[in-house]
Amino acid sequence: MNAEQQAPESGCLKVSSKSSPASVAGAIAGMVKDGVGVEIQAVGAGAVNQAVKAIAISRGFLSPIGIEIACIPSFGRHRDRWRISHGHSLAVEPRYTHGTPIADSALGE
Amino acid sequence: MNAEQQAPESGCLKVSSKSSPASVAGAIAGMVKDGVGVEIQAVGAGAVNQAVKAIAISRGFLSPIGIEIACIPSFGRHRDRWRISHGHSLAVEPRYTHGTPIADSALGE
Repeated sequence: MNAEQQAPESGCLKVSSKSSPASVAGAIAGMVKDGVGVEIQAVGAGAVNQAVKAIAISRGFLSPIGIEIACIPSFGRHRDRWRISHGHSLAVEPRYTHGTPIADSALGE
Repeated sequence: MNAEQQAPESGCLKVSSKSSPASVAGAIAGMVKDGVGVEIQAVGAGAVNQAVKAIAISRGFLSPIGIEIACIPSFGRHRDRWRISHGHSLAVEPRYTHGTPIADSALGE
């Protein structure tokens, strides 16, 4: 799992119905661990399903090191090369519970 | 939008691929406003897509009254009458940003 080494500067991940949820989960986990905000773009039911799967899997990667995440879905327009698609954006961010920033200590690792 | 009046004691919503995202969004918004934790159960890509749509729509209902929400996806086994299905659970909860419980003042309304 070398997602940390490949973490892009921008936190945008495009997910399709054919994306591997485990690979996307690795990328999410790496970026969140590095303190990079992640925005997942998914167009279509299959893509959204893979994105949600990936977030669920990445929780399993991050939870043991003390980072809990949540996602905030919104509607988004995604620009491809030729056209604009209407789909979902899922912002993934560390979760704060009852005023306690769970992730702060772990993010510094 | 009378979702508040119908808010069930248990915070479980089963969403299918044929569920209306707007109706589910109304139910989510009502329950979150009433301080009831919501767990959305969805089996299949179409159902997960409708659930994510519903959460995105409910953000639009709740945001103007000062409540921000996030969802925490996990894998779940859902028991139907005859069988056990494997799908997603999406827990919806008020979002706390940087130690400030955004929803606390609004939840009391």
